[in-house]
Amino acid sequence: MSAAFIPTISHPQRNRRVLLVRRPDGIPLEEDFAIDAIALEAPGEGRMLVRNVYLSVDPAQRGWASEAANYAEPVPLGGVMRALAVGQIVQSRVDGFKPGAFVYGWFGWQDYAVVEPEAVITTIAQPRAPLSAYAGPLGINGLTAFIALTRLGRPSVDETVLISTAAGAVGSLAGQIARAAGCRVVGLTGSDDKAARCVERYGYHEAINYKTADIGSALDRIAPDGCDIFFDSVGGPILDTVLRRMRVRGRVIQCGTASIASWSPPPSGPRPEREVLTRRLVWSGFVIFDEQAEFAATLDELTGRIADGSLVYDEDIEMRFEAAPGALARLYAGRNDGKLLIFTG
Amino acid sequence: MSAAFIPTISHPQRNRRVLLVRRPDGIPLEEDFAIDAIALEAPGEGRMLVRNVYLSVDPAQRGWASEAANYAEPVPLGGVMRALAVGQIVQSRVDGFKPGAFVYGWFGWQDYAVVEPEAVITTIAQPRAPLSAYAGPLGINGLTAFIALTRLGRPSVDETVLISTAAGAVGSLAGQIARAAGCRVVGLTGSDDKAARCVERYGYHEAINYKTADIGSALDRIAPDGCDIFFDSVGGPILDTVLRRMRVRGRVIQCGTASIASWSPPPSGPRPEREVLTRRLVWSGFVIFDEQAEFAATLDELTGRIADGSLVYDEDIEMRFEAAPGALARLYAGRNDGKLLIFTG
Repeated sequence: MSAAFIPTISHPQRNRRVLLVRRPDGIPLEEDFAIDAIALEAPGEGRMLVRNVYLSVDPAQRGWASEAANYAEPVPLGGVMRALAVGQIVQSRVDGFKPGAFVYGWFGWQDYAVVEPEAVITTIAQPRAPLSAYAGPLGINGLTAFIALTRLGRPSVDETVLISTAAGAVGSLAGQIARAAGCRVVGLTGSDDKAARCVERYGYHEAINYKTADIGSALDRIAPDGCDIFFDSVGGPILDTVLRRMRVRGRVIQCGTASIASWSPPPSGPRPEREVLTRRLVWSGFVIFDEQAEFAATLDELTGRIADGSLVYDEDIEMRFEAAPGALARLYAGRNDGKLLIFTG
Repeated sequence: MSAAFIPTISHPQRNRRVLLVRRPDGIPLEEDFAIDAIALEAPGEGRMLVRNVYLSVDPAQRGWASEAANYAEPVPLGGVMRALAVGQIVQSRVDGFKPGAFVYGWFGWQDYAVVEPEAVITTIAQPRAPLSAYAGPLGINGLTAFIALTRLGRPSVDETVLISTAAGAVGSLAGQIARAAGCRVVGLTGSDDKAARCVERYGYHEAINYKTADIGSALDRIAPDGCDIFFDSVGGPILDTVLRRMRVRGRVIQCGTASIASWSPPPSGPRPEREVLTRRLVWSGFVIFDEQAEFAATLDELTGRIADGSLVYDEDIEMRFEAAPGALARLYAGRNDGKLLIFTG
C-alpha cells in the first residue's frame, strides 16, 4: 500500500450527515437536504464502522431520492442520503474486514457509517491508484462504462459509437474504452470546453456541443451512415434524434435518463417502436448493481489501464462537506469538470 | 409428394396482376389497387416462370406499400403489389429449379411471376403439409414466431409470455411455441370469439379481448408479477401499457407496429426509456428476412410439430382473386379467422 495514495484523514468525534428532508421535485436541490451531526455509534456484532473519505455524487441519486418506483427503494424522508463512498474501516466486528482496510460501498453522505458487510461493494486490498479513483473510474463509473459498453454494445473495429454525457464520469471512460476497441467515437457534451476535452484528452474523434449544435445535422455530417452503438445516459429528445440515425442492428444502451427532469407523469415523445423494428435495434437497460459477478475481473482490467496511462480520468473534488446538499444540482447543470466527489476532510 | 396436398391449378393464358396505383394513407384500401391482366411472359435465361397458387396477405405489406423509409424499398406506383406466395414452377431456365417443383417466395399478387432464383425463399422438395401451409406456418409466419420467440425471447419454464395479435397468423403459433416451452402464455386479441379460440385451440392460459377489457387491470389480475416476454406486433398504447408491466430483465420483441396507422409524422406516446432502464429490458426489433440462415432447420422443426399435431394453425382462404385488393383492409380490421390467403384458382 503506497502511503502517497491515501490522504490524511481526521477523526472527529461526531458524525456529520446529509439528510433527505424534502422529496425532490425533479432534480434534487440544496434545500431538499439538511446537515446534522450526531454522536458516533459503535458497531454491534456483525457490523463495522467506516470512516468515509470521498463521498460520491452520482446522477442515479436523483432516482433514489424520488418517490417513484425504481430499481431501488426510495430513500426515506429524514434518512441519510443514499450514496456510494470510499472509506476506511475504523472498527470491525465482522470476520474478514480488518480495521485499516479501505472499502467502497453504500456508506451514505456522512462522515461515518455503521454497516453490515453487504454494504461493501469492493475491498481495496492494495490500492494501485489514488483512493479517490475507487469512487470513480474504479467504482461504478468505470464498471458501468466497461461492462455496459463491452457486453451490451459489443463494439467491433470501425463501428461508430456515440456517447452522451461524453465528458462525464462514465462517458469519458466509455469513450476511451470504445476508442481502444478500434471504434470511431463521437461524443455529445454540454460546452465547447468539454467538447475540446473530449477530443484532446479522451480520444474522441469528434465531439458535439449539444447546447449550441443541431444534433441531427451534426450527426448527419459526422456519421452519415449512422451509429452502431449509442451509449446513452440522458434519454429525451437527444435519444429521439439518435434513434432515427442508428444503423441496422445497432445497439442502444440505456444507462440513465438524466435529461428528463420528472417522470410523473411520464413526458411524451415520438414513438420509437418503428425505429426499433425497422432498424432491428437492440435497446437494453443497464443497472450496474446487477453485475457484481463481473466486478473483480473488470476492476483488474481498469486498474491496469489506469496504471499504464491508457485510461485517464478527471476529478472535481469538493473540499467542503457543506457542498454535498447542492452537489446534485451542480452535477445536473453540468457545472463540474470530471467526477464530482466530496472530501470529508 | 402426396397428391392430396396439392390443389388442382388451372393454367390461364393471361396473368392477372394486382397493381399498387395509389400510395396508401395508412392502411392500404381496396381503392389503392387495380387489377389488370397481361399476356404471359416467357422466362429469359436465368429466370423461371412460377404459377402462383396461394397469395399471402401479410401486415408487413402495409410498410412495403408506404413511401416512408423501411427495411425494404417501397413498391413503385403502378407495379405489382409485393407479396409472398406459394407456387409451382412452370418453365425454368435456371439450373436446380425444375418445372413441377413447388416454391415459396417473392412472387407478388399475381397469377404468374417471372423471377430470378433470388426470389425463392424455400423450395418445397417434398410437401409434408398442405401446400397452403407453406405460405403460413411453414412460411414467414411460422419462421417469425419460432425464431423471434426462441432467439430474442429465450423463454424459460414458468416464465410469463404475453403475445399481441394472439389469434393471428404469427401470434397463434408463437403462443403454442411458448406453451410448448413450458411458459405461462397470455394473449391479447380483438374479439371474445378469438379469445376463446386462443384458450381452446392454441393453448393460451388466458386471453384478453383488448377491445372490451382494460388491458392494464386485466394484466394486473392475470400476471400480477409482470411479463417476462412480450411478443409484440402492434406497438402503440398496448405496448405502453405492457412496458410498464414487464418484469426486471424482461424481453420485448418488436415484430410489427400494426396499431399505428401512419408514421408520418410519428405519433407521440409516453417515453419508454425509464422503463427500459429501470426494468433492464432488452427491446429488440425483428425482421424475418435477416434470418435466412436459420430457415431450413426451423422449417424442419415446425414441419415435425405440424405433422405430429402439436402445432395447429387456421387458414382463411379467399377463393376470388378479386378479393386481393381489399384483403389488407380486412386483415387490419381483424375480419379474418386465421392466416389470410388468396387462392388463384
